[in-house]
Amino acid sequence: MFSPLIDELMQALRCLPGVGPKSAQRMAMQLLEHDRGGATRLADCLSRAVEGVARCQRCRTLTEQPLCGVCSNERRDNTLLCVVETPADVLAIEQAGSYQGKYFVLLGHLSPIDGVGPEDIGIDQLMTLLDAEPVSEIILATNPTVEGEATAYYISERARRAGITVSRIAHGVPLGGELEYIDGGTLAHAFSSRRTL
Amino acid sequence: MFSPLIDELMQALRCLPGVGPKSAQRMAMQLLEHDRGGATRLADCLSRAVEGVARCQRCRTLTEQPLCGVCSNERRDNTLLCVVETPADVLAIEQAGSYQGKYFVLLGHLSPIDGVGPEDIGIDQLMTLLDAEPVSEIILATNPTVEGEATAYYISERARRAGITVSRIAHGVPLGGELEYIDGGTLAHAFSSRRTL
Ligand SMILES: [Zn+2]
Ligand SMILES: [Zn+2]
Repeated sequence: MFSPLIDELMQALRCLPGVGPKSAQRMAMQLLEHDRGGATRLADCLSRAVEGVARCQRCRTLTEQPLCGVCSNERRDNTLLCVVETPADVLAIEQAGSYQGKYFVLLGHLSPIDGVGPEDIGIDQLMTLLDAEPVSEIILATNPTVEGEATAYYISERARRAGITVSRIAHGVPLGGELEYIDGGTLAHAFSSRRTL
Repeated sequence: MFSPLIDELMQALRCLPGVGPKSAQRMAMQLLEHDRGGATRLADCLSRAVEGVARCQRCRTLTEQPLCGVCSNERRDNTLLCVVETPADVLAIEQAGSYQGKYFVLLGHLSPIDGVGPEDIGIDQLMTLLDAEPVSEIILATNPTVEGEATAYYISERARRAGITVSRIAHGVPLGGELEYIDGGTLAHAFSSRRTL
């Protein structure tokens, strides 16, 4: 509309999650009108990240170093291993700030219907890691979906056979969540997982 | 948290309007996990746009060419000139699709308190353009704010002295807008600007 280059930029911005045509337009205008420094810095960070960021050799999260910050941190508890589906899950748990153990990132979940088997979510690497490190407990933090539960179940069976304690993070009503706004599935789970006080 | 490079990318994404820490994180993860092609293309478009996009020599909107697509389009009506505050306003009007004239972009509005005078919003260039082109009507589409109204008033006086018809776009209740959700200022304006049927 304006010019081929601006149209192209608006189109390119739509690769960002949650950015539709209107936001892309606002972003392009904002950057070109008021923040070319920010735009240049963003272009540079994107290029360097795409070039440099790969997988942590131990836990498979995203990092530009051979080992991520958690894996290379000697003060983290080597006996606890939290298994998650994605690097974003690691980030969420780290931001909560209470977990002091280490991680393993599946980069997905079991999904026979999509042809995703154990070998596709790094189960071999996970079992090798369990052999090599003094892990005493695996904490399964896969998502509370059908696939996430199936994945958790599969790993729990494998880990138990290796003599390792397996736990699952609790699911239920979020703290501060108002019951009337919680979905039915969560509520049903909260009831069936109730604990006697 | 993850790695310096990913932290830097999340930080850089926050130059985008409406992107807070959580969105920046989701965007960085999405790009690095699932769309490195998109990230590379975005980096490239940003660099080229920052490098190449400047002002249209005639109307001052954003373009990488000497003249923007509207100014260089010989089928647009040279006798109508719509005056707006920003390139984003041009885009909005173009997208509405009904206006067939040309534009002039002030790149701001008069604001004595901020030291923004006529020379800062291109009034000299506008008057030169009115001399050089067969403009018979100026349509003022500055924003319905105190500054936008003052700017419209100033331009209308200058243009009228140059013998040019001046009009202001209508303001009021948006089509499809429900009265109960319209702000009081708009409603008051809609009443005072009512037309006898
Ligand atoms: Zn790691
Ligand atoms: Zn132009």
